[in-house]
Amino acid sequence: MNEFEIIDRITQILGRAARAESVLVGPGDDAAVVSVPPGFELAVTTDTLVAGRHFPTDAPGDLVGCRAMGVNLSDLAAMGASPSYCVVSLTIPQADIPWIEAYARGIAEYAKRYGASIVGGNIARGPLAVSVTAHGLLPAGEHLLRSGAQAGDMVFVSGTLGAGHAARLANDPRFYRIEPRIDLGQELRGWATAAIDISDGLLADLGHVCRASGVGARLTLEAMPVAEGIEPETAITCGDDYELLFTARERPDVDEPITAIGEVVEEEGITVLDLGRAVAIDKSEGYRHF
Amino acid sequence: MNEFEIIDRITQILGRAARAESVLVGPGDDAAVVSVPPGFELAVTTDTLVAGRHFPTDAPGDLVGCRAMGVNLSDLAAMGASPSYCVVSLTIPQADIPWIEAYARGIAEYAKRYGASIVGGNIARGPLAVSVTAHGLLPAGEHLLRSGAQAGDMVFVSGTLGAGHAARLANDPRFYRIEPRIDLGQELRGWATAAIDISDGLLADLGHVCRASGVGARLTLEAMPVAEGIEPETAITCGDDYELLFTARERPDVDEPITAIGEVVEEEGITVLDLGRAVAIDKSEGYRHF
Repeated sequence: MNEFEIIDRITQILGRAARAESVLVGPGDDAAVVSVPPGFELAVTTDTLVAGRHFPTDAPGDLVGCRAMGVNLSDLAAMGASPSYCVVSLTIPQADIPWIEAYARGIAEYAKRYGASIVGGNIARGPLAVSVTAHGLLPAGEHLLRSGAQAGDMVFVSGTLGAGHAARLANDPRFYRIEPRIDLGQELRGWATAAIDISDGLLADLGHVCRASGVGARLTLEAMPVAEGIEPETAITCGDDYELLFTARERPDVDEPITAIGEVVEEEGITVLDLGRAVAIDKSEGYRHF
Repeated sequence: MNEFEIIDRITQILGRAARAESVLVGPGDDAAVVSVPPGFELAVTTDTLVAGRHFPTDAPGDLVGCRAMGVNLSDLAAMGASPSYCVVSLTIPQADIPWIEAYARGIAEYAKRYGASIVGGNIARGPLAVSVTAHGLLPAGEHLLRSGAQAGDMVFVSGTLGAGHAARLANDPRFYRIEPRIDLGQELRGWATAAIDISDGLLADLGHVCRASGVGARLTLEAMPVAEGIEPETAITCGDDYELLFTARERPDVDEPITAIGEVVEEEGITVLDLGRAVAIDKSEGYRHF
């Protein structure tokens, strides 16, 4: 197969995932053309996964497709956005058709599940890497930022912590099959004063929120919703959870599981209290990209 | 520098390129947030350049940044769109700060020149590759497609052919400093029945237009606007020109240099006439990605 035949095959697999009323021009032209309804803004995010660094080089294509979509959709969740359009890029050493087809199936599965249309992409020969640029719709002015936390706010986290990290160590498919908190992100609009998704680790990501907001935080270690078999110290420093970490004046009335884990304070820096005593946490900077 | 310091440095260099009134949230949060004015559509395209395949591994960062922006802006030109927002991704083996800073300067130069805001991006460790997703605005319904060519239309090309290829062979900076036909693309709205930019080679790209439109074409070799020192047969098969190739009922009234090079016919396939006689052209499929 040449490039154009491969693209045709990928487009076939993406099938209905590529089409929606708001997709005016889908894959196959110089660019896709999409519409944004009046009164809405567009959130845009991109993330690249490199073989041998972000996933094992022998990882199945479908799982890599799922993770590439999942990490980007999680960023949209952290903005409070509803997934709308994605462009997907693949760099691969050979025209390994079964792998590419599996990758397209993974992309299509997540696209359908979360309501995102795959509107275009790129394929190139080179070291294995995948990249997704995801777009999400937001009612004008309702985006969630990292910078709105204020002293006195409560700190919350969704779900449990540490399972993503354990799945990474075990090379479990759940490492790839991220469940981005898309519904929660949208529910948090109007409640959260600041939000971020946990990709680098809770302490590191809370650090981003605190720096962007010019505040600090005090966390209660025993309050952490830790996944079974995970130490609390690991749970708050390991990455890969893709839960939402957010601050709010009061407990939001939402359908998803959330846990209050601390409070925002004026003094900069993050203090972790274990039964009332401040403890030092190693590896507090989370996943480092460089 | 760690990842976050590198991103801060890149964001500093991008400076004003990152800001525009329609950029509601720029780099630094989980996603950027942009607005699309009422009555406009958004064109979205992405292209990845891999070191050792699309550019030499020792190419200067600024030139790689220019080319990464240029190839994507050229796709926007072929849609008739006006550049608005870009996200830029870099995968690099080491934190080579001077190279990364030069790359950011190249990105910023093109962003400023063509009015595109850099709203976000990604940096990861891995084999050198760059990827840009470019967004352009279009008045609703006015996008140019590959699929509108009709028998009886004239075929036109902008500028001259072959210079990009010669620059590639000579490793001349002009290979990187693409001049996407942004103004022409917008002028062609309402004139062109189909349009594409020449990246794979004139014959290959005209083939895309013909297939998408269900037509054929007859070209006049001696009419080709060939760059100095290039053979006409090379000029119509080599890639990298980033000129616009388009069809129209009549000669458009535009400011940019354009040349009529043939006509659209009902029968499928492309015939090249040299002084009235059909000739066979080798390498007629242009640049192959696989």
